[in-house]
Amino acid sequence: MRISDDPSTDPADYEFSHQLRVRFAETDAMGIVHHSRYLPMMEEARVAYLRHVGHPYQTIRDEGIEMNVLEAWLRYRRPLVFDDVVDVNVNLAAVERASFQMGYLLTVAGEVRATGITAHGAVTPEGRPTRLPAWLRDVR
Amino acid sequence: MRISDDPSTDPADYEFSHQLRVRFAETDAMGIVHHSRYLPMMEEARVAYLRHVGHPYQTIRDEGIEMNVLEAWLRYRRPLVFDDVVDVNVNLAAVERASFQMGYLLTVAGEVRATGITAHGAVTPEGRPTRLPAWLRDVR
Amino acid sequence: MRISDDPSTDPADYEFSHQLRVRFAETDAMGIVHHSRYLPMMEEARVAYLRHVGHPYQTIRDEGIEMNVLEAWLRYRRPLVFDDVVDVNVNLAAVERASFQMGYLLTVAGEVRATGITAHGAVTPEGRPTRLPAWLRDVR
Amino acid sequence: MRISDDPSTDPADYEFSHQLRVRFAETDAMGIVHHSRYLPMMEEARVAYLRHVGHPYQTIRDEGIEMNVLEAWLRYRRPLVFDDVVDVNVNLAAVERASFQMGYLLTVAGEVRATGITAHGAVTPEGRPTRLPAWLRDVR
Repeated sequence: MRISDDPSTDPADYEFSHQLRVRFAETDAMGIVHHSRYLPMMEEARVAYLRHVGHPYQTIRDEGIEMNVLEAWLRYRRPLVFDDVVDVNVNLAAVERASFQMGYLLTVAGEVRATGITAHGAVTPEGRPTRLPAWLRDVR
Repeated sequence: MRISDDPSTDPADYEFSHQLRVRFAETDAMGIVHHSRYLPMMEEARVAYLRHVGHPYQTIRDEGIEMNVLEAWLRYRRPLVFDDVVDVNVNLAAVERASFQMGYLLTVAGEVRATGITAHGAVTPEGRPTRLPAWLRDVR
Repeated sequence: MRISDDPSTDPADYEFSHQLRVRFAETDAMGIVHHSRYLPMMEEARVAYLRHVGHPYQTIRDEGIEMNVLEAWLRYRRPLVFDDVVDVNVNLAAVERASFQMGYLLTVAGEVRATGITAHGAVTPEGRPTRLPAWLRDVR
Repeated sequence: MRISDDPSTDPADYEFSHQLRVRFAETDAMGIVHHSRYLPMMEEARVAYLRHVGHPYQTIRDEGIEMNVLEAWLRYRRPLVFDDVVDVNVNLAAVERASFQMGYLLTVAGEVRATGITAHGAVTPEGRPTRLPAWLRDVR
């Protein structure tokens, strides 16, 4: 699996959007959100997306499937700062037999802040690769 | 269990010391280490202490005992900043049948920065309280 | 300043409540929320409280006042887990000339999970103690 | 600027190596290190590299240059777990007029765990792009 897409900067290209507010604890001494803190925001939006399509992540976990992260890519276009209200736009970008990619666009009041991609594989709780659930292959 | 001790600000009162360096990711927009980030530093020192007394935390976990945190208390006396080399002094402050307390003193070049206490209980992986390992009751 | 109150476990004793959902990134290998992650949740609720009483934290910062944390105390009564919807109940617990305390009660569906206190001092951006804003002394 | 290199999985291809130990606070409920936690490890190694070449990051900051992160890419090849002793191998992978890339290889006892790239730009404390310090262009 290779990360292949360059995510769109147009929110209209995304199927789902999740809103959150930047915590003070997410900032760093440069006065902006630390670059490592975008991944948990994208994860929160991914979890909200799965809930939205009727498959809460905890349910998937209860059925014996973990979705671990194989790759992640981020482009920081303009810093997020404390108290920003962020729209994390989410897309299911590619689905294969045992893995899928999701694309992200983070905006504040419509202004682009960051784009990202995560690639995921389905694994058993013991960490062995397994097939993706059928609904995920059919969700699009 | 109640947190009862006011930890000493004299490093000589501590049995063990662990050194670490402040990460940039631990700072916040006030330019200092975020107050939530002291707890992982204290945890890192606690884990180093357990290794030092011959009982690495992972070994304890492998034997079916988790040591969850029941209480935590912190006094921030002077901020830590990026790149500070911190001595985390550690003490086993109180040991009872199913719980124990640890005291902490954080210094930079001998100067006091923070004190803290954590109280822990022994639990099974399912989260049920269990007796402390005998060595912990005997360690002092 | 000393932390003095034992926060109530009755949500009715709190003036304000802020709801959030536990992120997967906040869990640890014990399968529960890491004990250091409660402080950012309490901070998020504190920031929401300040917004609620008409004084957003960023506005306070823009007026040249930082509210640093002097002490923090937490009692973990029952673990939070991934995806829990948490009500963080907040109280302004004590106000003095240059410092104040806040009390917290974290519940999930009405069930008590944790209580906490934070003590704060007003400081200038250079870190010098300064008087609390008048509105904060009058807010109760 | 585009992230272009695929970092080598051979430690011999790296100019510098920094060792750290995985904290319990860095794990998640899958029992492995959370994917967002690799970036602070890479940052810690980057800071150690800059110190190693005689230009501590705080000195660079004191001279009015921040090195913000423009892009980040990570490939998670095999999970890190609690207490792993990680060698973070670092390379200065590309240097241009106002930006540079660094490559990373994370190994545990010689075994590959992850690779990554970060791309950085030099900015003033106000966030305006500025030229890279001369020493950085000459360091290789």
